[in-house]
Amino acid sequence: MGLLPSWVDSANAPGGDFPLNNLALGVFDTGQGPRCGVAIGDQIADATALEAAGLLTLGAPLLAQPSWNALMAAGPAIWADFRAQMTELLRKAAPKRDRVAPHLHPMAGAKLHLPFTVAEFTDFYAGRHHATNVGTMFRGADNALPANWLHIPIGYNGRASSVVVSGTPVRRPWGQVKGPEDSAPRFAPSARFDFELELGAIVGQPSTGPVSVAQAQDMIFGYVLLNDWSARDIQAWEYQPLGPFQSKATATTISPWIVMRAALDPFRAAPPQRDIPLLPHLADSGDDFHDIALDVTLTPQNGTPETITRTNTRELYYSPAQQLAHHTTSGCPMRVGDLLGSGTISGPTPDSRGSMLELSWGGQTPINLNGAPRAFLTDGDTVTFRGAAIAPDHRIGFGTCDGTILPALANPYAS
Amino acid sequence: MGLLPSWVDSANAPGGDFPLNNLALGVFDTGQGPRCGVAIGDQIADATALEAAGLLTLGAPLLAQPSWNALMAAGPAIWADFRAQMTELLRKAAPKRDRVAPHLHPMAGAKLHLPFTVAEFTDFYAGRHHATNVGTMFRGADNALPANWLHIPIGYNGRASSVVVSGTPVRRPWGQVKGPEDSAPRFAPSARFDFELELGAIVGQPSTGPVSVAQAQDMIFGYVLLNDWSARDIQAWEYQPLGPFQSKATATTISPWIVMRAALDPFRAAPPQRDIPLLPHLADSGDDFHDIALDVTLTPQNGTPETITRTNTRELYYSPAQQLAHHTTSGCPMRVGDLLGSGTISGPTPDSRGSMLELSWGGQTPINLNGAPRAFLTDGDTVTFRGAAIAPDHRIGFGTCDGTILPALANPYAS
Repeated sequence: MGLLPSWVDSANAPGGDFPLNNLALGVFDTGQGPRCGVAIGDQIADATALEAAGLLTLGAPLLAQPSWNALMAAGPAIWADFRAQMTELLRKAAPKRDRVAPHLHPMAGAKLHLPFTVAEFTDFYAGRHHATNVGTMFRGADNALPANWLHIPIGYNGRASSVVVSGTPVRRPWGQVKGPEDSAPRFAPSARFDFELELGAIVGQPSTGPVSVAQAQDMIFGYVLLNDWSARDIQAWEYQPLGPFQSKATATTISPWIVMRAALDPFRAAPPQRDIPLLPHLADSGDDFHDIALDVTLTPQNGTPETITRTNTRELYYSPAQQLAHHTTSGCPMRVGDLLGSGTISGPTPDSRGSMLELSWGGQTPINLNGAPRAFLTDGDTVTFRGAAIAPDHRIGFGTCDGTILPALANPYAS
Repeated sequence: MGLLPSWVDSANAPGGDFPLNNLALGVFDTGQGPRCGVAIGDQIADATALEAAGLLTLGAPLLAQPSWNALMAAGPAIWADFRAQMTELLRKAAPKRDRVAPHLHPMAGAKLHLPFTVAEFTDFYAGRHHATNVGTMFRGADNALPANWLHIPIGYNGRASSVVVSGTPVRRPWGQVKGPEDSAPRFAPSARFDFELELGAIVGQPSTGPVSVAQAQDMIFGYVLLNDWSARDIQAWEYQPLGPFQSKATATTISPWIVMRAALDPFRAAPPQRDIPLLPHLADSGDDFHDIALDVTLTPQNGTPETITRTNTRELYYSPAQQLAHHTTSGCPMRVGDLLGSGTISGPTPDSRGSMLELSWGGQTPINLNGAPRAFLTDGDTVTFRGAAIAPDHRIGFGTCDGTILPALANPYAS
């Protein structure tokens, strides 16, 4: 499918994240309080106002509150109807153009909030290169992948309260750490603070029992970019035997725009080659992967932005639908607004790794950043993720997912 | 403090869980929809109705919805005021007795719901005997406790959507399993389904940064009994390297009555002896433990109830306040309604172990139940927890926390 032309000229410009094909969903504020908005070019269409004005009719008022959860809960038929109506309002020569135009606001002047209320957050580990890199560092190349890794999408429950929107500063955490040479643990600011480049899938429909991969695919509402900030030194000390906990709880940044699943349908991709077939309940149900190009830019305080990684969501070994299906095997109830992080998406080459841990190989081979060696994140650093599915004449983008590191608090327990 | 006499005669009977000293909080329904209720003897005082009638005034309407979260959010001064007002309404010779009496309902005829909306659920591992037992089974006696165990309360995020109220049947889960002798994993119903005897602490006040143990203590609203149902075979295959996931997500049962922290103040207990001092940010801040006797009864289908374990919350190594303080070290925001499971509370002797895994030592030494050997839970089993703080002339009880095992579904993926 080619570019769908819009009467909003900026939506037709090449290289923009938000053509009419995208219709990404955010929550924005231009001074009158947060409302639901749809990105179109360099503008935001106030969907809350369009619904209130009767230009958007969804069977029931779904957009009166500043979150997209009510639309999610309404189900796939309404999701499709919403996209069809928005397309009709914003397409070239739309008959209602003059009634819609007053509800557009420049994106540049808008404050963006979390686009949905996160019910629960789960973080997977579904990138094979990442799991192999980390496993090689910790256990050696011969035992890199855990025995279960090629059979189930390994994941752990994260902390929904940690999820913040792009642009929110992230404060370096304190935590208990103990290096391999230390005789005892100590309480200190993390010295190995890191990002993880992930894709987040948003669960738009609930479940009360096990669902198949095909059913899971239909439950997914959309996607965001996700930065699973990670304190590697805290993680190393705490994670045995029950997994990461405080090392992952400081913040989890998501991009402000939800790209709906339908917008990415033309960019579906085949599953990876599998050395070991998956058991039937997790078997591939179709082209459930996506071709989304990702990059990470690191900007030191008062420094120059440098792109340090380029990769693609095709590097995932388990699709979001497989992650979600696995999540339900035990009968675990899933909720509208659950967020599933994919795990770090690293590619096969050194310049496609999705974390500083991998880029600097545990700190042993720092990268060069603005002419200086760099192993982990420094105070004042800004980490920026970008992602887009790319067609010949347009792209479906996520906007940026960024955060700047603030220095650690003075010892929070000193009195 | 001795028994506070009530005009509700059953509240003064010895051996009851709900004297006036307790004032446990639930959500009940006698046919007119769920409302907030306070347990008093064998009756429930309709707190929603008492507030609506002006007999209970809390500064703002806090009990109009069927959950206690709004009272939690109102803070410790209102918690104390609420208890003082309820005591004044229910004490012997209460002047307003005749106005209160119409708002009492027999507990026997009431359906009980979850007493609060669980924001997020975290499960700790704070029982030393349990951690030692499990570690001995998996790693041998010399490496039983993980290196970090005596320094931080190990925990992992659980799944809030899995939390159900006592009495809800629990369906045996399916999952991917692989025994040590199996050449490949398979998808099957869990054959090693188990309970875990825990105390749940409810976070009643939010935090946005690290809090001290003393501050954490003040944030705790109350306690419930908690059964962290666990599929040991699924857990064994999935838990490396990121911790338990589907093995713990089928269900988490809590007792229907929240015992407020103030009701347990007379039963505070000193910390355990510590071989290794805790770092200052986790140091004991006072008598933050409780003396609460616990027992577990197992009743086979059509069989006779047998008490299989007796233990006490004094067996915990980390208090709920220490668990909560640790939870905030990274800056992790805590929310009103967060639920913290203590981890399994086992005592030092074989008959005080808080799970079948420990009671049957991994299935090697089954217990005798109704004259037959028993290693794990069987379909039709009912597991019942009871707990109470015991004074010479009264007890502060939690009611029962029970669940009956339903057989696994037919293969949910067979078509």
